Amino acid sequence: MRFLRTGPVGDERPAVTTADGTFDLAPLLDELGVPDIGPRFFEVGGILRTSDALSAGVLPAATIDGDRVGSPLARPGKIVCIGLNYRDHAAETHAEIPSEPIVFMKDPSTVVGPNDDILIPPTSEKTDWEVELGVVIGERARYLPDTASAGSVIAGYVLSHDVSEREYQLERGGQWDKGKSCETFNPLGPEFVTADEIDPSNLRLTLSVNGVSRQNGTTRDLIFDVNHVVWYLSQFMVLEPGDVINTGTPAGVALGLPEHPYLRPGDVVELSIEGLGRQRSTLVRASTDPSAGPSTGPSAGASAGAEVAA
Amino acid sequence: MRFLRTGPVGDERPAVTTADGTFDLAPLLDELGVPDIGPRFFEVGGILRTSDALSAGVLPAATIDGDRVGSPLARPGKIVCIGLNYRDHAAETHAEIPSEPIVFMKDPSTVVGPNDDILIPPTSEKTDWEVELGVVIGERARYLPDTASAGSVIAGYVLSHDVSEREYQLERGGQWDKGKSCETFNPLGPEFVTADEIDPSNLRLTLSVNGVSRQNGTTRDLIFDVNHVVWYLSQFMVLEPGDVINTGTPAGVALGLPEHPYLRPGDVVELSIEGLGRQRSTLVRASTDPSAGPSTGPSAGASAGAEVAA
Repeated sequence: MRFLRTGPVGDERPAVTTADGTFDLAPLLDELGVPDIGPRFFEVGGILRTSDALSAGVLPAATIDGDRVGSPLARPGKIVCIGLNYRDHAAETHAEIPSEPIVFMKDPSTVVGPNDDILIPPTSEKTDWEVELGVVIGERARYLPDTASAGSVIAGYVLSHDVSEREYQLERGGQWDKGKSCETFNPLGPEFVTADEIDPSNLRLTLSVNGVSRQNGTTRDLIFDVNHVVWYLSQFMVLEPGDVINTGTPAGVALGLPEHPYLRPGDVVELSIEGLGRQRSTLVRASTDPSAGPSTGPSAGASAGAEVAA
Repeated sequence: MRFLRTGPVGDERPAVTTADGTFDLAPLLDELGVPDIGPRFFEVGGILRTSDALSAGVLPAATIDGDRVGSPLARPGKIVCIGLNYRDHAAETHAEIPSEPIVFMKDPSTVVGPNDDILIPPTSEKTDWEVELGVVIGERARYLPDTASAGSVIAGYVLSHDVSEREYQLERGGQWDKGKSCETFNPLGPEFVTADEIDPSNLRLTLSVNGVSRQNGTTRDLIFDVNHVVWYLSQFMVLEPGDVINTGTPAGVALGLPEHPYLRPGDVVELSIEGLGRQRSTLVRASTDPSAGPSTGPSAGASAGAEVAA
C-alpha cells in the first residue's frame, strides 16, 4: 500500500493507493478516532486496518489529480538522522568512514510536502541538498536484541530530502542540528510505501539541480544498512510509531563538489528513489516577516499530480 | 500562575495553582477542545483563558496531596538545548567559551515527571546530571528581529533535568544527541510557571546526589541569557508553542569532577531552581525487556506531594 495526503497546506486529505486505484482514507481515520496519518495511526494498527478495509471494499474512491501533494505523514514525533552513511559521501566531505552510526536530529516541524518550496534562510549562503531513504517506524522499539528484529518495527519507507545549511551545520558551534532544522528543510513524500512493497537494500537514489545530475547512488552502498540503523538507534533512544529516520545521503552534495554550487533562489531540485516516487522543489529566499511561512506550498505552476507515480 | 499535572503515568490531570489554591483545569481544557497542557493549549491562548477562568471563579478546587506529579507539559513538540552556556561548566569540561550558542536536540519522548525514576541504559557507565532552566515557548517565533522581542514569545519557565550519557555523547561519533535522548532523560517540572512570576536573570540552581551538593549556580552566570537564546534559535528554526528550550547547566557535573562520580543504580538526585520547585529522582538500571518503560513513575516511597511547593 502507498499512503499519501493531498490538498491545501494544513488541510490535506489522506488517501491510499493500490493496483486497484486510489481510495479516500478519511472515513477509516474517523472510525479509528485518529486525526491523520501520524503516530496515533500506527499505534492503533492503522496499516492493518487499511488493508482490511481495502479487502472489504468499503473505502470510497478518491480523485487527486492536480491536487497539491502534502507530506504523507502529518507530523513525525521525531526525525533522527544518520550522518556520513555512504562511503563516497564521507570521502567527499573529507570525513573518516564512521566506525558506528553518527546520529543527529532534525526539528519535526521542518516537514513539508514533496513539491513545496524550500525556503533559504535570510542569511544563508550554503544551503545544500541531500536525497535520503526515510524509514518510518510502525511499532515502539527499545533495546532491540539484534539487527534481525529491526524489520518488525519498520512500517515502511519514504523519500526524504535532508536539506542542510553547511555554514550553520559546520562553522557555527560544531553540533550539526543548527544547520538541519531551518523551516521547510525536510520535504517528505510523495508517498509512504509499506515495507512489504520495498526492498531497502538495493534502491537507486537520484538528485538533480536545474536539470544537472548531482547525486546518483544506491542503498547497496550504505555503510550501515536499514536494519542495523534501526537496531542501533534503539540502544540509545526509544523509537516510536510515526518516527522518521533519515538514513544518510550518497556523494554529490554541493559541499563536496568543486566550486560548492550551493542552492540559490529560483533553483529547482528534483529527487527520486526507486519505488518511492519523485520530488520537485523550488528554492525561495525566506521572508523575515514573523507571520510568514513555513509550508507555503509549491510555487505557481508546480502542479504535483504527475509526480506521485513512482 | 503555576501549571501542573498529577496522577498516574499517562493519565495525569491538569491543574493550576495560585495564591488562592489549586484548581482543576480539565473542565477548561474540555471547553477549549485541547487534550492536555501541550502545544495546542498555548496555540489557543490557554494561559489567558486560564487567567480569565480563575478571575471568574469557575474552576473547581483540586486536591493533589500525595498524588504523583507528572511533567507539567504533556509532550513538547521539540526540546532544543544550549551547550556550555555557563563559563564555569565550559571550563570544567575543558571546552572553549563558545562565541555563539551551541545547539543540540533531545528526543521529546524523554520527558518524564519530576520525581519519576531515571533509567540508566543497560550498557551505560557514564550517566551524568545537569540542572537547567527550561524555557517554554508560548507563541510561534521565526526570525525575531532582536533579543528584546524574544520576551513576548516566552510562556514561562520550568525546572529541567538534562540527563546526559557522556560516553554516548562524546565518544561514540561526535554528535551530542546520541547521549541526550535515552528514555527518561528529561525529568521536567514539577510546575510550569508563567513568565510574569519569574525573573530568569537571577535564579539559583542547585543539584545534589545522595545528599552531596554537586551544582550550585545562578542564571546570572549564563553566557547567553534567555532572551538572547530565544532570539538566536529563531534565526535557525521555527520555535512553536509548547517547545522547550534547556538553557544549559552550571559547573559541577560528574564529567568535570575528580574521579567522575557518574550515576549508579540507587543514587538519588535532587535538584531545584528558585521559584520553580524541586525534583527528586532515583536512578534505576533499565530493563532490556522490549515491553518495559519508559515513564515507570517514581520508586516506592517517593511520594511527591511535598515537592510541589517551590
